Amino acid sequence: MRIRTVGIIGDSMEKPELNKIAEELGKRLAEEGISIVTGGREGVMGAASKGAQSVHDRQSSSRVIGILPGTSQEEGNKYIDYAIPTGIGWARNQIVVLSSDIVVAVGGGAGTLSEMAYAWAYNKPLIAFNGVDGWSSKMGDKAIDDKRKDKILSAKNVEEAVNIIKDIFSKSHQ
Amino acid sequence: MRIRTVGIIGDSMEKPELNKIAEELGKRLAEEGISIVTGGREGVMGAASKGAQSVHDRQSSSRVIGILPGTSQEEGNKYIDYAIPTGIGWARNQIVVLSSDIVVAVGGGAGTLSEMAYAWAYNKPLIAFNGVDGWSSKMGDKAIDDKRKDKILSAKNVEEAVNIIKDIFSKSHQ
Amino acid sequence: MRIRTVGIIGDSMEKPELNKIAEELGKRLAEEGISIVTGGREGVMGAASKGAQSVHDRQSSSRVIGILPGTSQEEGNKYIDYAIPTGIGWARNQIVVLSSDIVVAVGGGAGTLSEMAYAWAYNKPLIAFNGVDGWSSKMGDKAIDDKRKDKILSAKNVEEAVNIIKDIFSKSHQ
Amino acid sequence: MRIRTVGIIGDSMEKPELNKIAEELGKRLAEEGISIVTGGREGVMGAASKGAQSVHDRQSSSRVIGILPGTSQEEGNKYIDYAIPTGIGWARNQIVVLSSDIVVAVGGGAGTLSEMAYAWAYNKPLIAFNGVDGWSSKMGDKAIDDKRKDKILSAKNVEEAVNIIKDIFSKSHQ
Repeated sequence: MRIRTVGIIGDSMEKPELNKIAEELGKRLAEEGISIVTGGREGVMGAASKGAQSVHDRQSSSRVIGILPGTSQEEGNKYIDYAIPTGIGWARNQIVVLSSDIVVAVGGGAGTLSEMAYAWAYNKPLIAFNGVDGWSSKMGDKAIDDKRKDKILSAKNVEEAVNIIKDIFSKSHQ
Repeated sequence: MRIRTVGIIGDSMEKPELNKIAEELGKRLAEEGISIVTGGREGVMGAASKGAQSVHDRQSSSRVIGILPGTSQEEGNKYIDYAIPTGIGWARNQIVVLSSDIVVAVGGGAGTLSEMAYAWAYNKPLIAFNGVDGWSSKMGDKAIDDKRKDKILSAKNVEEAVNIIKDIFSKSHQ
Repeated sequence: MRIRTVGIIGDSMEKPELNKIAEELGKRLAEEGISIVTGGREGVMGAASKGAQSVHDRQSSSRVIGILPGTSQEEGNKYIDYAIPTGIGWARNQIVVLSSDIVVAVGGGAGTLSEMAYAWAYNKPLIAFNGVDGWSSKMGDKAIDDKRKDKILSAKNVEEAVNIIKDIFSKSHQ
Repeated sequence: MRIRTVGIIGDSMEKPELNKIAEELGKRLAEEGISIVTGGREGVMGAASKGAQSVHDRQSSSRVIGILPGTSQEEGNKYIDYAIPTGIGWARNQIVVLSSDIVVAVGGGAGTLSEMAYAWAYNKPLIAFNGVDGWSSKMGDKAIDDKRKDKILSAKNVEEAVNIIKDIFSKSHQ
């Protein structure tokens, strides 16, 4: 029954280069019937959610889930279907990652870096966009520590990221 | 965009009397297109989720969201559409409540009592089933403290609970 | 090495009757070399911390630990030795309880009720003041649910509470 | 009243090179009357706590505080004075940082990286050991993002770290 989810993490500032990627990524994943998980705020989170909303409607199985730091269902961006206010501040970064089958990073500062670290620690497949401004460009093809044998995957554009995601899902049985 | 949610809280033990109510409540809410939020485990949580799943399909706007205490998307009952593993143990009770527009309690022990307390503290409309075994029967028509002017609402059966819920949603503008 | 701690929970409003009990309780426990854990805010939390501070100094082994809901070390009352800002809001109620060997409730509203529920769920010895305004008076000598075989202990004054606490510690081996 | 605290973060694996630094750092800070905050587990956390314990006794104002991921006061290393079990898993990394006036990183993998990110996001002074194996060596003299104007401080040995810490405390007024 469980619906497949991809977490999209990245800069909360409005950076056109990153937002363009995030919106296209959200759109493409929604077209595949995949639901989106974000931290519910602006920047990459808002753009990815907007992209997903542009495709899906109530007849699609794709929904946008926003895992919010505060206590109000209204604090997130306007593209959220399910608002999950956690009330635990940036500790909610752990929950963004845990609620995602796969995590994709698009740029990002300290918050995104903490999420990439959690994704690694919790053994989630992690894809980092390269060639952009922010932490995702520094982490592709690297191991965060030696507790995992694999590396962070790297994508240079949306199509490559979507192909990696579809490949991972096709190899899992859920 | 935000989809209406009702949180259903209650006993995690399998008690037929409570499960019957919870399953019927989940079913009726799903028929109204309302999504269900639970703590993702067994007992009332599992029964409510099962009831909702029996109605909705991918063409309905109703989904079942499970806010899980552990770190695995697989730890919840099998009727969950969106698994939100929080990794924060029973502190996730705060998130169950915050993610719900309205909270309904069906029986319940210490965990449910903490959720009723959070629902009150976070100013959520709270409906408690009476005439059943557990804390919900003790809390209807009472105020938990004097920080709110209203009282916990009381329902004696599923139809009454659904009517209260529809009435609350009809008065709100979201 | 671990220093014994007693959590003191209760009303965050300033109620003279409750504050008098809490301050005396904090003082008496500090005299016994026991450290105090509170939620770090006002009312019973502040009064208990003030009482403990009135006794202990750097030569005593007693300290006051404040488990704060916000992110600032400065947000608590002024009697805190160790400020633990959690940034997780009222979900910190779980941590107040988990950090205490024994929990004592003095009055209290919804927040205190959630802490009593957590104390029960996490199997902590729990003492509730009776004869005062608030939830502690309603819970003494009761079981919150049937997952524990014991009952919430009841104290009618500070001396009785201190004797119960000393008795519990004398029976444990830490 | 509030007692000064330094958080020591780093590898949870037992790496002699890192443990030697951590133990010496804990010892030197305890000699200065500063209390230690760690995540309460092994490796750098255990070594720093052991170092601090070797100096302080009940007549010193220094204590060791362990912010634990699980729910048991007994789960941490044996050098903890105050065990703070959070029950929130690695989300407790946020609390380790928030409970520290200054954070020092010694090596470290994904968990330490998340803590460095939180320290930056929550505006804490952050000192990273260089010349060691792990993330601390990669972060000294860098800015994690442009939300702060300063950089992560860098220390090449314990004495340099202690001097930076004393300097920071001497410039603050608490």
